[in-house]
Amino acid sequence: VNRRDQAPAALFEGALRGDRASTARLLSFIERGGSSAREVGRIAHSHSGEAYTIGLTGAPGGGKSTLTSALITHLRALDLEVAVLAIDPSSPFTGGAILGDRVRMQEHATDPGVFIRSMATRGHLGGLSLSTPEAVRLLDAIGRRWILVETVGVGQVEVEIAGKADTTIVVVNPGWGDSVQANKAGLMEIADVFVINKADRNGVDGTRRDLDQMLDLSDLDDDAWRPPIVPTVATTRDGIVELWDAVVRHREHATESGRLAERRAFRAREELREIVAQRLREKAREVCTGDRWDELSDSVVAHEIDPWTAADEMLAPIEA
Amino acid sequence: VNRRDQAPAALFEGALRGDRASTARLLSFIERGGSSAREVGRIAHSHSGEAYTIGLTGAPGGGKSTLTSALITHLRALDLEVAVLAIDPSSPFTGGAILGDRVRMQEHATDPGVFIRSMATRGHLGGLSLSTPEAVRLLDAIGRRWILVETVGVGQVEVEIAGKADTTIVVVNPGWGDSVQANKAGLMEIADVFVINKADRNGVDGTRRDLDQMLDLSDLDDDAWRPPIVPTVATTRDGIVELWDAVVRHREHATESGRLAERRAFRAREELREIVAQRLREKAREVCTGDRWDELSDSVVAHEIDPWTAADEMLAPIEA
Repeated sequence: VNRRDQAPAALFEGALRGDRASTARLLSFIERGGSSAREVGRIAHSHSGEAYTIGLTGAPGGGKSTLTSALITHLRALDLEVAVLAIDPSSPFTGGAILGDRVRMQEHATDPGVFIRSMATRGHLGGLSLSTPEAVRLLDAIGRRWILVETVGVGQVEVEIAGKADTTIVVVNPGWGDSVQANKAGLMEIADVFVINKADRNGVDGTRRDLDQMLDLSDLDDDAWRPPIVPTVATTRDGIVELWDAVVRHREHATESGRLAERRAFRAREELREIVAQRLREKAREVCTGDRWDELSDSVVAHEIDPWTAADEMLAPIEA
Repeated sequence: VNRRDQAPAALFEGALRGDRASTARLLSFIERGGSSAREVGRIAHSHSGEAYTIGLTGAPGGGKSTLTSALITHLRALDLEVAVLAIDPSSPFTGGAILGDRVRMQEHATDPGVFIRSMATRGHLGGLSLSTPEAVRLLDAIGRRWILVETVGVGQVEVEIAGKADTTIVVVNPGWGDSVQANKAGLMEIADVFVINKADRNGVDGTRRDLDQMLDLSDLDDDAWRPPIVPTVATTRDGIVELWDAVVRHREHATESGRLAERRAFRAREELREIVAQRLREKAREVCTGDRWDELSDSVVAHEIDPWTAADEMLAPIEA
């Protein structure tokens, strides 16, 4: 049977057995949204809950892909399997391909212990904010224990997505100010670990001082986690061991303090809230079309009926 | 009877007779939203449809209030009555007062032919995007024929609100580039008339060239309205006659070409669509609280139920 014609349940069996093409196909369902995505989501949800997710974000050009690649190499040396989702909100159609500077991750392409996939907006009505957690859950459900979610920039959607991980790494460079100006507060809020990548350049101390100052201002509780600042040179893998150590320490802190469970519960509730809101948006689109809509909106235009009464009439079937 | 205790219908009678305090009170109802706002809206809607609205926007510091004040003086000299809504999305509570540089409009405060009111976000769930057209309709319903809607900045909400007028004036200054950079495209799209205010400064010709070039690029139809560019010095009232002339010409063009009717119909449909969406957002908030929500979201957190099934169950009462 061609995989194109297989139903989600059959593809999921294949993915569980390690068939990468089945996994890729399931991720495509998720990207496109709709009823197949929902079916994949339902199957994945009941099998998930074991994976640990690591978010990675920062301004473009900061060396995130090289850093991700170096992290993968490190995890493989520790004999851990890893899956990477590269999220690109700016690209409407990457179609699962690894594009642009993600080519750096290609060195892992033939390693069966590594799964890498680009995710873009391909029709899912909730956008990447809803499709990314679904994709993470699928990788979790098929047995991937370490999932890296890399986003390309520091826009609101990207920061939000990276911030939904169990541990979030924010990558900056020496003299980082301008490149992240627009969303510095957002980045400060989501960071569990800071990386100053390209630390062989000038300005590392100033950048560290900047970050420290901002952390001092953020008024953390005594027992709160203070994001460590790790200098790295991803191209030579300098600092990668220390970075991984920081991630592991954050994981321990979050687990023992109960913050991890809290954060996951909060995320689950937020996702549910977003799904409800999304359903209602679809409903609104449905309501605002068709003959009844034409008729009522024409009456409003003609001042024969006020818009609140028209809205009441249009929503009557779902207000019951 | 104290006006505070009067119902919208009684206040509307007062406002129709010219009682400014009644009008102010009705506008406060609209600002705060809820059932009283809806009642005011219903009354106003059936009495409205005669006024002509003029939107006015531009970067802060461009002299919009002085320009508005000069326009008022001109309209009063023509024996026209005028109402001004000064919209300030950045201020959560101006409470109907005329604040900051709107003080310049105070010269008209004792003129019964002029009504000026600041509008801010004061609880209306649809925000200023929904409360502003309601306020305009109220002023229309009580007999104001010329309504100026001035917004303080060039943010998305402000441009959107100013763009919903029958004629929209965009105010720039010589060497305007930087001050509006973030939303230049938005401003170009809504402008029916450009004003280069503070035209006694250097750079008027360059700014006019800029605007002309952008208009050339916008590829207008042959019979389309090309926004004229009017230099003014609001403080000395230079150019105000020409500005009013441009507004009147645009009004004639829009009326004769049928564009005015089209635009108003489009606006009415958009408002209805937004009211429907707003109702559904309120519905979503309603659904995502209470015992049922707690129970279902706890089950999702515990992985006992997937979020789509939980959303189905939560929305079941309104999916009928």
